[in-house]
Formats: sequence, structure tokens, C-alpha cells
Amino acid sequence: MTDQPTQTERTVISVDAMGGDSGPAVVVAGIAKSASINPKIGFVLHGHESVLRKLVSKRRVLDGRVVFRDCPDVVTMEDKPSQVVRSGKETSMWSALESVRQGEAHGAVSCGNTGALMALSMMRLRKLPGVNRPAIAILWPSRNPQGFNVMLDVGADVRADAKDLLQYALMGASYSRNGMSLARPRIGLLNVGTEEHKGRAELKEAHAMISDFAEQANFDFVGFVEGSDIPGDKADVIVTDGFTGNVAIKTGEGTASLIGDLLREAFKYSPLSRLASILAITSLNRLKKRIDPRRVNGGVFLGLNGTVIKSHGGADATGVSAAIKLAFTLAESGFSEKLAARVASTAALAQDAAQSASQFEE
Amino acid sequence: MTDQPTQTERTVISVDAMGGDSGPAVVVAGIAKSASINPKIGFVLHGHESVLRKLVSKRRVLDGRVVFRDCPDVVTMEDKPSQVVRSGKETSMWSALESVRQGEAHGAVSCGNTGALMALSMMRLRKLPGVNRPAIAILWPSRNPQGFNVMLDVGADVRADAKDLLQYALMGASYSRNGMSLARPRIGLLNVGTEEHKGRAELKEAHAMISDFAEQANFDFVGFVEGSDIPGDKADVIVTDGFTGNVAIKTGEGTASLIGDLLREAFKYSPLSRLASILAITSLNRLKKRIDPRRVNGGVFLGLNGTVIKSHGGADATGVSAAIKLAFTLAESGFSEKLAARVASTAALAQDAAQSASQFEE
Repeated sequence: MTDQPTQTERTVISVDAMGGDSGPAVVVAGIAKSASINPKIGFVLHGHESVLRKLVSKRRVLDGRVVFRDCPDVVTMEDKPSQVVRSGKETSMWSALESVRQGEAHGAVSCGNTGALMALSMMRLRKLPGVNRPAIAILWPSRNPQGFNVMLDVGADVRADAKDLLQYALMGASYSRNGMSLARPRIGLLNVGTEEHKGRAELKEAHAMISDFAEQANFDFVGFVEGSDIPGDKADVIVTDGFTGNVAIKTGEGTASLIGDLLREAFKYSPLSRLASILAITSLNRLKKRIDPRRVNGGVFLGLNGTVIKSHGGADATGVSAAIKLAFTLAESGFSEKLAARVASTAALAQDAAQSASQFEE
Repeated sequence: MTDQPTQTERTVISVDAMGGDSGPAVVVAGIAKSASINPKIGFVLHGHESVLRKLVSKRRVLDGRVVFRDCPDVVTMEDKPSQVVRSGKETSMWSALESVRQGEAHGAVSCGNTGALMALSMMRLRKLPGVNRPAIAILWPSRNPQGFNVMLDVGADVRADAKDLLQYALMGASYSRNGMSLARPRIGLLNVGTEEHKGRAELKEAHAMISDFAEQANFDFVGFVEGSDIPGDKADVIVTDGFTGNVAIKTGEGTASLIGDLLREAFKYSPLSRLASILAITSLNRLKKRIDPRRVNGGVFLGLNGTVIKSHGGADATGVSAAIKLAFTLAESGFSEKLAARVASTAALAQDAAQSASQFEE
């Protein structure tokens, strides 16, 4: 055991153990999975300490790698964000973010209520200087060599103006460089057609602004893209407002799930098709793995002082472990600091661009 | 041949033969397919008459069932709608709509440029009294017993206000009653969450207005639905603005197409999986047919004086035939007249509702 890193040498991830649909047992199973793969990772675990200690004690791989923070309260899926911000001090979610704020962890992961997690993150970690609206970025299976595209924003129920969309482009580029090792990501702006005259006014304005920043921020701007390009190979990062992004991913997920169910039905249909499904099982499992949302579980909150990852509420151990891996990768790459530097260096220029754009409108 | 209906007894569909990606041969193959299934259907065919006559003469089933309208000009996919409206008089698209306007056809089908078709339809056929914004409705494979949901609007690049969304709900209900024989369709309003406090201001306003009209317009309002419900079984009609709808269907199509390609790859992977694909071929073909977009080819333009169907630009003969069948079904049901009556009876009340809603805001 002497060659094991000590807790201070480890990259520490702060985990809200209470928020998910399946309870803390699944979260602990997930961190155990990560710990067994990655010796460089450690945890601060937030929730009912007695329950958590019991679960952790059963996992040998977690020995000496978990610090506990006892929290009496839990944020539920029904709690309104405004309410949690006002009176959520005793919750495991609040505590998980506090570990990042205090510097004892390099990033936070929660399976809880998305709206509450974003509201608390904004209040406790604060937005990066120059960022108007933080965004949630997800990975979506695509035809690209890396197998996935980044899409943002997918989280909020509000509109984004041209300057917000520019910031999403900058943050998305930075994320894909650090999270997916793409040296020069291709950015696309989601619209209902690829012709430059199409779409809403703020999209045309954003098109011009993102174009202006491409060289300086070291990305390729491929212009407008369509819904079909979200799983396509035209762009690595798809920029859109949170409303459209949220509807798009849920439509894609729903369609994929319908096809999966119909495929299972088809294979059950006759003795011949049942035999076929046995013969094809390896190939089908490979396909399933390729588009498995659990492999890319985790929406990253961009634009905050610190890395926060929202894991799916219904995530199983594999899903939780994927979210932890993402938090670890981003922490190791110094993503949060790089993103802050990138936004700061362009914020002033973006301000100028927005001002000249708005003068242009008058 | 004496028991064949005469052309005047037939339901006549006006077809723009020139606009599609694959040219008039595919369109003529499509109408021949429809003609061989349905003895009650006749056609007015618009385009280069010499070319069309040659193609039609090769199909015995079309003998005596096609009237030709020679048009020297064609609307291309690149033409801007405004340009076509100004100088498109000699095009097959214009001519196809003219047949509906003059009453010589019961509906029009075109594979051409969507924006131009909508602009021309609005100019030549005019909006129904009381309709502010016509919408394009499509069918989407779903978990519902009927196998499909209606979604509208999917066509425009503009926002829709609460009153527009109410009209979409009314038109979508009427369409699903006449096109899909649903006596009491369930209407859902697309949002980023199902809680009533979520989403943009116009959605909350539309929620209240649609709710008020449900009883009178004979539909069930299931409230807010999410992207995952577009292929789901919670609602029969999904109401949204054209921007969000367009992005959602293209994301769904792109995801389905990616899965299809990956599935084909998986089956090619090994001798065993190749054998499996042969054994499963009947079941897989059944699945393919179930989600085949060609079976439900055709966006219906709602809110005009006359039925116009936009067939996919890349449609093959099966796709064209499906669009024609839809035009026929709607014409037979007297849909256009019923929709006009429905909108007229609710337009005045909607006006009142909008006014009281806007007073409420102040």
C-alpha cells in the first residue's frame, strides 16, 4: 500500500450522495467503481454520515479515500430553486458545493434537482467575471471521430441573446479542448436552416460575433447548423439557447429509446428472430455501448468559479462513475482556470462587439 | 372499364411535378402508385408538359386520369420565397396552387422549396379568417396506438405568441380528428418541464388559453409536455413554435438515422452477426416500416383556404404516394371546410381571451 497516493496527492471530487432517484447506495457503488479504476482519485462525500459510512465500509477500495460531511437535509426533485437558495444550508447539495468553494475538492458531482443545483452553484461559486449566463453542456453521440458532440446550453428555460450565445461558443470551445482533447474544435450555431439570412434576429447577430472571435479563440466557426447536425459530423460543439437545447436532447433521447424498444420487440417476434438476436448479441451490445447515455452521463456547468457536474437523476453506478471521471478529467486539465482566462481575455472585446452591434441596430 | 369513376367523380389532387430532388420521373411513379391503389383519385400535373406526357404515357394506370398544365419555369431549392412570390408566375409550384384556388383540384402536393411553397400558398390561397399564422404539421412515430403523433408548427423561423399557440392547438386538434380519426385528441404544449411555473412567459399564457378552449373545441389538454413526449404516448398533438419544432424533428431524424447506420454496421461486423441479420430480416423490415419517414411523408399546411401538402424534397415514389394519400384523405373528410368553421367559431372568443390575458399582464 506504500505506493498508493495519499489523500492530499489525490484529485478530490466532492459528491452529493443524496439527490438521485436511486439513493446513496448507487452513488457509493459509483464512486467505488471510479476508485478501483483510478488510484489518483479521492472523495468528499455529503449526506447522512451514518448511512454513508456503512455503505463505504463495505467497499475495500474506498478505504482511506473518503472524507465525510454530515448533512441532515436533502434537496428533493420537487423543491423550487428559489426555496433551496433561501433555506438549503443544511442540504447535502449545498455542502457538496461548499467543498469546492473552500478548495478542499477540485470539482462537485450531484445527481439532484438541476434547477436547484444551478441556482446554488451560481450563489455559492459565483459566475466567472465576464460571464452573463452560465450554461449546461452535455455530450451527444455523433458521427464525429471522437464519437460525441458537445451541445450547450441544454439547461435553462430562458432565452439567450447574441452575447450569451457568443459566450456559449467560447466556453464550449474551451470545454471540448480540455474535456475531449480537440485542439481546434469546430463550432456550429443551431438554426432552422444553414443559409445566413435564416432564423431569428439574435442568431444573425450571434453569427457575426462568433465569426469575429473564431481566430482569436482558436476555433473554427462552421456557421449555422441544423437539428440533424447534433448527431452529425459537421461540428464538434453545437451552440443554442437552453430552451431549444433542452427540447432537442429530450426529443433525441425519446426517439432513441422508442427505436430501442421497437428493436427488442422485433427480436422477440418469431423463433427465427429470437435466434438471430442471440447470434448478434455481441454486435448489438457494441452498438448499445456506443450510444449508451450512461457513458457520457453528466451535464457540465460552464461559467462558474469551479467545476460542477450534474449527473442524471436516474443514473446507475456506471453513470455516476462516468460523471466522476468527467469531473476528474476536467480537474486534471486545469479546465476551470483555463476557461476563466479565456473568458476574461475575450470579455472586454465581446463587450465592445456587442456595443458596436447594438449601435448598428439603431 | 365502365365501372371506373369519371374524372369529375374523382377526388382530384394537384401535383407540382418539378420541385423534388429526384425530378418528375419519381413524382409520376408516385402518382401511378396511388392511382393503382385508389380508383377514386385523379390528378392535375404541373410542369414541362412534353416531359410529363412522356412519363405518364408509360403508366397504363394513369390513362384518362391526368390533366396537364404546362409551366416553363421551376422553383429551385435555392430560390428565396420573396423572389418566388414576385416573379414565380410561370412556375409549376404557382400553377399547382392555382388549381386549388380555381377549385379544379381538392388539394395540392409539392416536393419543392418549403419556404417558397408557404409564401406562395399564403399569397394565392390566403389565410383562413381568424388565423394569424399558418402552421406546418407533421406526423412523428410514437408509442401511441395510432403509431404517430401530430406536431406543429415545424416550418417557420419565427416566434409564436400565446394566441398563435392556441390556434395551433385548435388546428392540430382538427387535423388529428380528420386525418387520423381521433374523436377526442389529447393536446400537449411543448416546454422544458411539465410543472406549470416552468418556461417562457408566452407558454404560461398559452397554457391558460388552451385550457379554457379544451371543452368547447372537444379536445383534452394534457398541459405541458417535454421533448421526450414527441415520440411518447402522453399526447396526440404536440404544439410548439416553428423554430423549436423544426429543430426537434431534425434532431429526432438525425438520431434515428445515426442509430440505423450503426445498426447496419453492427450486423456487418462478423460472420455470426451477418447470419443474424439474415435470420432477423423480416422482423427488422417490420421495424423499419414502423418508423419509416416515407410512410408519413408530408407536412400539411394548416390555416389556409385549401389543403397544401409539402412532400419531402428527397421523397421517392413511396413517399410521394404517401403525401398524395394524405391529401386525398383530408379532401374526402372535408377537412379544409371543417377547420375553417372551427377556427371561425373560436376566433372571436380567442380574441377576447387574448385581450383579457394582456390586460392581466398590465
